[in-house]
Amino acid sequence: MLVTLLTDFGTADYFVGAMKGAVLAANPHAAVVDLTHDIPAHDVEAGAFTLAAACETFPEGTVHLAVVDPGVGSPRRPLVVAAGPHLFVGPDNGLFGYLYERHAGARVFHVTNAKFFRPAPSTTFHGRDLFAPVAGALSAGVVPEEFGPRVDDFVRLARPAPSRAHDGTLRARVIHVDRFGNCVTNITPADLPPEAFERGARLRLGPHEITRLRRFFAEDEPPARTGDASATRGDATPPAPFAIWGSAGFLELALFQDSLASRLGIRRGDEVLVNRET
Amino acid sequence: MLVTLLTDFGTADYFVGAMKGAVLAANPHAAVVDLTHDIPAHDVEAGAFTLAAACETFPEGTVHLAVVDPGVGSPRRPLVVAAGPHLFVGPDNGLFGYLYERHAGARVFHVTNAKFFRPAPSTTFHGRDLFAPVAGALSAGVVPEEFGPRVDDFVRLARPAPSRAHDGTLRARVIHVDRFGNCVTNITPADLPPEAFERGARLRLGPHEITRLRRFFAEDEPPARTGDASATRGDATPPAPFAIWGSAGFLELALFQDSLASRLGIRRGDEVLVNRET
Amino acid sequence: MLVTLLTDFGTADYFVGAMKGAVLAANPHAAVVDLTHDIPAHDVEAGAFTLAAACETFPEGTVHLAVVDPGVGSPRRPLVVAAGPHLFVGPDNGLFGYLYERHAGARVFHVTNAKFFRPAPSTTFHGRDLFAPVAGALSAGVVPEEFGPRVDDFVRLARPAPSRAHDGTLRARVIHVDRFGNCVTNITPADLPPEAFERGARLRLGPHEITRLRRFFAEDEPPARTGDASATRGDATPPAPFAIWGSAGFLELALFQDSLASRLGIRRGDEVLVNRET
Repeated sequence: MLVTLLTDFGTADYFVGAMKGAVLAANPHAAVVDLTHDIPAHDVEAGAFTLAAACETFPEGTVHLAVVDPGVGSPRRPLVVAAGPHLFVGPDNGLFGYLYERHAGARVFHVTNAKFFRPAPSTTFHGRDLFAPVAGALSAGVVPEEFGPRVDDFVRLARPAPSRAHDGTLRARVIHVDRFGNCVTNITPADLPPEAFERGARLRLGPHEITRLRRFFAEDEPPARTGDASATRGDATPPAPFAIWGSAGFLELALFQDSLASRLGIRRGDEVLVNRET
Repeated sequence: MLVTLLTDFGTADYFVGAMKGAVLAANPHAAVVDLTHDIPAHDVEAGAFTLAAACETFPEGTVHLAVVDPGVGSPRRPLVVAAGPHLFVGPDNGLFGYLYERHAGARVFHVTNAKFFRPAPSTTFHGRDLFAPVAGALSAGVVPEEFGPRVDDFVRLARPAPSRAHDGTLRARVIHVDRFGNCVTNITPADLPPEAFERGARLRLGPHEITRLRRFFAEDEPPARTGDASATRGDATPPAPFAIWGSAGFLELALFQDSLASRLGIRRGDEVLVNRET
Repeated sequence: MLVTLLTDFGTADYFVGAMKGAVLAANPHAAVVDLTHDIPAHDVEAGAFTLAAACETFPEGTVHLAVVDPGVGSPRRPLVVAAGPHLFVGPDNGLFGYLYERHAGARVFHVTNAKFFRPAPSTTFHGRDLFAPVAGALSAGVVPEEFGPRVDDFVRLARPAPSRAHDGTLRARVIHVDRFGNCVTNITPADLPPEAFERGARLRLGPHEITRLRRFFAEDEPPARTGDASATRGDATPPAPFAIWGSAGFLELALFQDSLASRLGIRRGDEVLVNRET
């Protein structure tokens, strides 16, 4: 009965409201839940990361309706995806890329059965006219097979895993910058064991170097600062960047109560090199 | 049971939350759904456009609570409106103007029955103290007649239909600019037949001219660009503006994956001239 | 069954979606309602004001999940609070300060019972791993006593009440600036009786003085301006600031259809002096 929404439509226009109405017209008992509508416009990669990180807490059977769709109207396929305990609806452009990695047995269906669409669907707003009513029908119990044939040549994201250079350097990159300016890398515990920092691992972003790992954001901060945003430091030490294992399962780079991305000018895609030969 | 909310309150303050609570206090079983709270402050015309475009997908009986109300506290009337399959609650200032056009038989009621208001209503926040509990009561099944007398001198929007100049030029205007920078005009299929562009119709906005119509945004784009925001064009052709029949039922002016409004400096209200004498 | 959410997470990331999923995993029948996610990052005082002003309209038994938590991961305590007709979940850092003032009999519990947490909770995202599932369990009927021991040394906000100088001047301050640029002071009707302005009360903010009180925002405005944002004034009088009793129960300072905060450069914390000796 739960239908979540993730789009790049922003919240200022009628798009999101019209989509919710189309879900509810197909299933008036659906509970509609916003994940986010602030994916940067047309940014499929950001949508894929955010969807994968946001969806996993939801209960079994939740339908996730995701529309970041720069190719709307072109022949890109509309999909229904059954991956792990959840169902997904959206365009075949890589938006479900992280989910295919996470759930090897994902089943992917090409939505062709027009009886589930709104009447006279537009060519410009498949979110409202096609994806939303399909999500509504799924949440009402229609099985994925009803929407169209199973396919296996769906679009995957180029895997953003780090690579190893011949001198042993780990070449990773920033895959997401969050609202606080924390920089999420594509480094997982499989790439960098817990004791790496104690052994002298150094992360480099251009001219900058990070050598500290924290277990939580406020670790090692003077108590006066914790919970008190207006306090000033008792000393003149500039805040130092640190690494931290983030809640999406990746290594993040951060400053305490400040934006590392702004301070160092870091953007998604920037390279992160890890020297751990010490 | 569905109650949607559309306001100009933004999402940073307590206003929206307090309104939702007041709806739910009047009907704890209501399902509250956000349309948008990002209507520009006091912009009744933008609210009217967005409400009309967002509401129409919702199932029969949905209650739409809309508050863009620069005259709060003044004698402007609070209204309940039954228009087509839906009910509406909000101020009598033109916010329901498009709905009156769309549903000739709309019934409009002046809300005077204070027993539905919150106790000791404020003079500054009718959204919370008056409109929200009325919307809650409507969603719980109270009939519109219970709230006050029917009226027929409600405020309509000055109709934004295009006019025809003596030389045959269609004088239209931009009635909305969406988040992607697409410019919605007030031109409908009744004003400009489908074959107009093939016959040589030219749209002019100040010094700019648009002569192409696309059926969908990605039409005529090289396949490499579709679904891949990071790709660059293989050639040096600057993107050209095009017209497209938009999902709200109007002709829109757009660029592919770019903001036409920003590129050409277009704003709501700007004139669009269509020469179709060729 | 109602669970509201208030955070400083913004709406662009996966944080809010992941929290909603964790609430719904703990109670699939909960109705999740957004208050706001746009509290300025780490700004506990703004969160406390907004939560108190937004929550009071909700029906009895509503669970309010509030996370503005710069000390996440540090030893600050997670709390469940029963205050008046509502339940609250969040960190012990002053976020519930206004509620403790309003409900003298509030009961406060230190959440220690890890059986309500998500498995293997992270150190960086207690909103998802700890507070959300606790809120879900509360909304499903688990009593506050189940989560941990009652405490009475919880963190209160330094009370933001005005003080009286020896010459009779009331020293107050701006505790909130809303989206319209209205400035909420900490002055209540107990500090400034209704007739004070008629007796000649003068409010001073730095070099500026306000002597008028309005009952509603549009009071004394020419009718042409009411409800018509595009109209211009018939005369050349610059708009004058006024005071108004606001909907959160405090005296506010405002301009009609303009931002007083922007015009006068006012920020939260700025001093407001009231001379009412006349």
